[in-house]
Formats: sequence, structure tokens, C-alpha cells
Amino acid sequence: MYMKIIKLLQDRKILIDSELEKVLPKGNIEPKKLHRAMRYSVFSGGKRIRPILAIESCLCCGGAAGDAINAACALELAHSFSLVHDDLPSMDNDAYRRGKPACHKKYGEADAILAGDALIVLAFEALVNGAKPPVAVKMLREFSAALGSLGMAGGQSVDIEYEGRKKGARILNYINSHKTGALIKAAVKIGALASGARPHKIKKMEEFGAAVGEAFQIVDDIIDNGDSVAVFGRAASIDKARMLTRKANKSLAGFGSASRVLSEIADYLIERKI
Amino acid sequence: MYMKIIKLLQDRKILIDSELEKVLPKGNIEPKKLHRAMRYSVFSGGKRIRPILAIESCLCCGGAAGDAINAACALELAHSFSLVHDDLPSMDNDAYRRGKPACHKKYGEADAILAGDALIVLAFEALVNGAKPPVAVKMLREFSAALGSLGMAGGQSVDIEYEGRKKGARILNYINSHKTGALIKAAVKIGALASGARPHKIKKMEEFGAAVGEAFQIVDDIIDNGDSVAVFGRAASIDKARMLTRKANKSLAGFGSASRVLSEIADYLIERKI
Repeated sequence: MYMKIIKLLQDRKILIDSELEKVLPKGNIEPKKLHRAMRYSVFSGGKRIRPILAIESCLCCGGAAGDAINAACALELAHSFSLVHDDLPSMDNDAYRRGKPACHKKYGEADAILAGDALIVLAFEALVNGAKPPVAVKMLREFSAALGSLGMAGGQSVDIEYEGRKKGARILNYINSHKTGALIKAAVKIGALASGARPHKIKKMEEFGAAVGEAFQIVDDIIDNGDSVAVFGRAASIDKARMLTRKANKSLAGFGSASRVLSEIADYLIERKI
Repeated sequence: MYMKIIKLLQDRKILIDSELEKVLPKGNIEPKKLHRAMRYSVFSGGKRIRPILAIESCLCCGGAAGDAINAACALELAHSFSLVHDDLPSMDNDAYRRGKPACHKKYGEADAILAGDALIVLAFEALVNGAKPPVAVKMLREFSAALGSLGMAGGQSVDIEYEGRKKGARILNYINSHKTGALIKAAVKIGALASGARPHKIKKMEEFGAAVGEAFQIVDDIIDNGDSVAVFGRAASIDKARMLTRKANKSLAGFGSASRVLSEIADYLIERKI
């Protein structure tokens, strides 16, 4: 059923990886260890969901894939940054990531922290690269809001604060929406902004991104058998994810056939494991 | 001799601190611990050299202080971010900063890492705030080059790689110019860009910033009795810093009386301790 969409996701991943290859300094450029740690973190797997959503959102709004490719790279660099820092001993203390040693295990803690720092700086640089300046500034606002203390960093801080403690529904929703939902939502909106579309289209894309982001974080938690499943129950979580996917797809109604791929990706992302 | 310039630096610090106060989320906004850690790091002292240089560079080029104030805040947020991460146990392992417990001692390692992350994201947001989009994008390029793997993060990575090892002149220069010089130089150029000045003025300011940045890092090392003093000798270091200050002030020749304050700041920064 999902053969066509799986093929498309694979093709997009190849495109994004080849751009990331160009954006990241080579491992033989000084400081070599830092550049190798950055590349290791970015190229150790990952489905490139955020950049793919940005590109498809841009296409859905009438833009070309090329309009969103740099922003797409920025989103993946930011995602990689967050994984490297989250895995650190003082954070989630994960020794493995995608079946390989975490960056801090392979390159040491100091270079893992610095690789994360350099990745987020590079992400901002990539984000505005080639964009029309007014669009670049709009994208930057979305990007920083999703990543900062009121976004992803805030979600991680609260997650660590509540580690090993019982979390109620409010805290759980806060953590999930900030750690996962915010960047997914931003990816969709940034892709729409990159297309140069009019505000009413961008608004619809924002609605789509918000619903998909929320659905995605629920599915993530179902896969990991995370805290939300314990609190809300598996069946209720699946129901909610499906409801949000329907809501997301409704936001695409006005785009006609241009939204078909984006809608199929949303379905696929949600249904892939539940 | 430096009474007037010291008064001016104090006044500028007050202005910058009042703007930083507005840019940073309050400590009673969730996530409180993260916001408190961010504020603690920014408001625990510091002379605000980088933002002051940006504002004076902007004034020297014919702009108003207000044109550079947001970029000035961004520079101080970036400087704070670098200090918080540098102090971490896996990096320089400093328990104190400016006579107070380092951020990781007061708020724990996880929130210190996240506070640094959130500060750098906020810095990018502040940098472009209120700027004309084409200027915003130009400033962002300078900013990210100074902070990324080929700038400050790279300098710190090499510094840690060579910790406890004998460093030759080449490595020492690399570390100093990347860890300290790059952001000083960027501060001056970003201030010039914020003024909207023509390219030939910006080029002169770049020369000024490069020389001041290099002089400043030499003085920093003389004050700390750092590795450069051991390698190059104290007298030779002082000579070089003075030569660089003269070179910096020569770059200001074409600005006439508009450059007086900037030139006095350069003299003061270099002479303050040597």
C-alpha cells in the first residue's frame, strides 16, 4: 500500500543527503576531529522526516524542491544537534544511537558538545542560504522559536526535571509537544515560507504541521512504549493520532491534487507502526 | 587618563544590560529553571566588550546606537553561551566564573548545556530582530562564521585536543584567533553592517576589527599569563599588541572625528592591564 510513498521518501533522502554532504565541512578540514564528529552525527542514519516535510510543503504550495533544499538541510542539522546533546551523559545518557555508539562515546563528551554547537550554528547559516532576505528572516523566526527555550530546549529541560518522576497529562503533553512536535510543525511552515506562498496558504500549512507534529509525537511514544502510553493508554493514543491525521489532511483540502504526496506522507508516518 | 572612556563604557553597559533584560525570558516563565540558568549566565558580570564594539562601530559608520542594539545583544548572548559550555566538566572544568559558581555548578550540567543551547538560538533571533532583511542576512553570515566549526567552536575543539600538551606558535595562534579574535572581529563588522554603511567603510571596519581582535586576545593571554606568553615572551607580546592597536587605529583614518571613541576604546582595551 505504501510502496510508492516509501520509494519517494527514499529518493528524497538521497537528495537531502547529497546536499548535507555539501553543506557539512569535510572530515579532512581542520579541526578534523570536530568535523568528523559533526558528520558522524548527521550521517549515522535517520529518515530525514523533517527535511522531507519541508520540501513537500514547499511543493504543495507551488514552490520547487530547490526553494526549500537549504532550509531542509538546516532542519536536519538542527535535529542532529538535538540528538547529540540529548544523548550526553548528563542528559539522557544514551551510549547508542541508531545501533551505533553515540557521538560522545565515539568522540568524547567535549567534542560531542562542540559538534552539537557547531551543527546548530551551521543550521542557521544553511537556513538563510540562497533565500530571499525577507523570506530568510521569516524562516529564521520559526526556526529559532521551535529550537529555543520556549521550544525544543525547553521540552528537554522539563523532561530532565521530571526524569524518574510520575508525569501527569499536562507535563507529558508539554514535553512531547516541545521536544518533538515543535520542530515538525516548524519544518512544514518553513517549507511553505520557502515557496513564497501567500499568507492564507501558509496558514493552512501551519494547521497541517501542527496536527502532523502532534500525531507524530504520539506515534513516537507508542513505538517507544513511552510515558504517554502508560498515562493515556495505547488504544486512546492510536485513536488520537488517527484523529489528528484526519484533521491534518482536512487542512490540505484547498490545495487539490498538489497536496496528495504530503497527505500520503502524513498517513504513512502515522500508520507505519500502529 | 581613561576616565572619560571608562564612564562611556559604563553607560553603554547599562544600556546593553537593560536591552538584554528585555530579550531574555523572565525567570518566572516556564521552563523556569532553564530561564533562570540563562539569565544567571548572562547577568553574572562581564564588561560587554563585544556589544559595545558593535555599537561604537555602528556609530562610527554614521548609524545610530539603536541600529546595532539588537545585534549587540546577540553578541553578548553568544559570548555567554560560549562561557557556559567552556566551563563544563568535560571541557575546561571550571567551577567558578567571575567569582561565582559556574552555571553547571549552580543549575547542574544538563541545564547548563541546555541554557547554552537556548542562548545561542536566542542570539540568532535577536541578531535579525528589527534589521532590514538584507542587512539581517549579511550579519547572520558573519555571526555564524565566527561561532561555528571554522570559528569559535573550532578554536575550543583544538584547545581541548592540545590540553596539557606543548603548543607551538601555529597552534597557539589558531586557538587564540578562533576562540577570542573571531567574535571580536565579527562584533565590529556586524556593527558596521547594522549602520547600513557602504562597502568601503565596512571594509575599513573589518581591518580595524581584525587588528583589535588579535590585540585583544594577546592582552587576554598576558593577563591570564597564558601559553602565548610562555612561547612568545611577555615583552614581545606587549609589543605585538601595541603594534596591532596602531594598525587598528590607522584603519580608522578615513572616518575623521567619528572614529575618536572607537579608537579610544581600542587603546583602553589594550592598555588596561599591560
